[in-house]
Amino acid sequence: MKILVDAFGGDNSPKEIIAGSISALEENKEFELVLVGKKEIIEEELKGYSFDSERVSILNAEEVITCEEEPTVAIRRKPNSSISVAFKELKENSEAGAFVSAGSTGAVLVGATLKLGRIKGVNRPALCPLLPTIVDGKQVLLLDSGANADCKPINMVQFALMGSAYAESLGVKNPKIALLSNGTEDEKGNALNHEVFPVLKSLKSINFVGNCEARDILSGEYDVIVADGFSGNVALKSMEGAIGVVLKSIKQGVYGSIKGKIGGLFLKKTFSSLKDKLDYNNKGGALFLGVNKPVIKAHGSSKRLAIKNTVLQAVEYAKFNISEKITEKLNQEEIKIGE
Amino acid sequence: MKILVDAFGGDNSPKEIIAGSISALEENKEFELVLVGKKEIIEEELKGYSFDSERVSILNAEEVITCEEEPTVAIRRKPNSSISVAFKELKENSEAGAFVSAGSTGAVLVGATLKLGRIKGVNRPALCPLLPTIVDGKQVLLLDSGANADCKPINMVQFALMGSAYAESLGVKNPKIALLSNGTEDEKGNALNHEVFPVLKSLKSINFVGNCEARDILSGEYDVIVADGFSGNVALKSMEGAIGVVLKSIKQGVYGSIKGKIGGLFLKKTFSSLKDKLDYNNKGGALFLGVNKPVIKAHGSSKRLAIKNTVLQAVEYAKFNISEKITEKLNQEEIKIGE
Repeated sequence: MKILVDAFGGDNSPKEIIAGSISALEENKEFELVLVGKKEIIEEELKGYSFDSERVSILNAEEVITCEEEPTVAIRRKPNSSISVAFKELKENSEAGAFVSAGSTGAVLVGATLKLGRIKGVNRPALCPLLPTIVDGKQVLLLDSGANADCKPINMVQFALMGSAYAESLGVKNPKIALLSNGTEDEKGNALNHEVFPVLKSLKSINFVGNCEARDILSGEYDVIVADGFSGNVALKSMEGAIGVVLKSIKQGVYGSIKGKIGGLFLKKTFSSLKDKLDYNNKGGALFLGVNKPVIKAHGSSKRLAIKNTVLQAVEYAKFNISEKITEKLNQEEIKIGE
Repeated sequence: MKILVDAFGGDNSPKEIIAGSISALEENKEFELVLVGKKEIIEEELKGYSFDSERVSILNAEEVITCEEEPTVAIRRKPNSSISVAFKELKENSEAGAFVSAGSTGAVLVGATLKLGRIKGVNRPALCPLLPTIVDGKQVLLLDSGANADCKPINMVQFALMGSAYAESLGVKNPKIALLSNGTEDEKGNALNHEVFPVLKSLKSINFVGNCEARDILSGEYDVIVADGFSGNVALKSMEGAIGVVLKSIKQGVYGSIKGKIGGLFLKKTFSSLKDKLDYNNKGGALFLGVNKPVIKAHGSSKRLAIKNTVLQAVEYAKFNISEKITEKLNQEEIKIGE
């Protein structure tokens, strides 16, 4: 099985992308690595590493899509970009199991939809990160976290079905699905939620547990949180921002005085395990759920550790056969709701 | 000037509400306190305190609206509830300067709109908390944070104008107004944002600085963040939840071992100043912006300190004459947008 990696996506490409990908090779022997991007530069960079050359190949792509470019225009105008070339390969080569990119989120999403294609029956794919919760070892999926700024009711219902399939693939039994709302009571929500809620409640193939307030996203109470892509994005980034403010304030306290530094030494383990727990971007990427093969978006600022973990995640996801599970879920239900 | 306080609103009413209100009396001599609620119980409770009896009166209200009741129904069916009685008094008595309640948010908002009335020209009032930022001493206003789950473009534009008037009242010169979005670039946003953005940009009486990502709400970069009530609520509660997770994890680390406890002692000052900074609910309440007089919603879990600070805040706000400033802002601009 081949895992395709966008060597020219992200703030630290190609150096950190290649370093991370190579170290993933060492940890898991089940896959072959295909680095996508400018061949000469990749070859030059690879000289610094020793690896099993039979497990590494390069797929040449002379163009690069930047985060400043309008995604749809960029995907159309740059057929030789690393993203476009990778999706073509992912679609056409049955051995290609998954694609990892830390590049432009918009271009990855548009490319996946246009070049790789949606799973039959899925109207809009969704971006789905795995977040840590306060309960040790328990994670929560939040979708859509930003692929679709405007959602129709049918999209939200499909997010719930896809999220449930994803959680089940990760080994969660009978995952608890909640709808992000402005309160926990059934009647809370905006007009969109009011259309979606009764339909989610009527579905037989998922375990819908009702509305979830944003303050409980990380409570460990839920396995999947369903949101439109705008509020999902707001939730995700609000949490990131707030966590950043707390950690920065503590850092200032620790480094601001001798007393602080001593306290910091005693609490070193607490702080580092906290940082490790919260730093979900280092543990892997967000799955773009609803396209024909696993596409995983790593954070733009990813360094080698994040890339290594995302590649290892891609190997697992390529084995899940999540597309089939989604198709199964979609076919189990007859959904009557506004499209 | 009289400040009306809902003695029967909130998880800790009437005990903590009365305690907090009385201690506000001691700190600020400029106002008279009117406690609204069941007279006999308030009188009994007041026996435990010494205060200038000329500055304290009771407005009897035999009914109580609970958080479980549907707000519109409750306001209509309970004309003798503390909330209904308070709004009647606030409307009819020119000496009544502001109202503070820790009771049902929905009932306070509905009551304010129906009984007290909106400022002429304001289509939908908005709930507007004052949040701390990473920059010491700098706060940010977030509106609407939950009064209107569904907003029209005109509502959002009015939120920007009202938020600017509020920030100016607090002494912020030329406040920076941003629109909450899923990215900072001008073209980001959902369909609602796309309608609102160009209008905000065209306004002459506010300093609109563009889109703000949710991760930057607490950055100190902005003075006012404009959002529809659903995403504003999601942002606010996501931040609350994430901060709670971090603080809880640290607490577990500190109390979990001897080493942790020692570290905690050395960092006591850091932790307590951090907790103080983040605990905005203790500093005052959220202003319900756009109704004829200041209505301030304290957190439902408020204890005496939070109530004291909210009453002191109410005294200041009663002096602002914010309604006139809002009317002025609304009249300065001719707004062409979907209602």
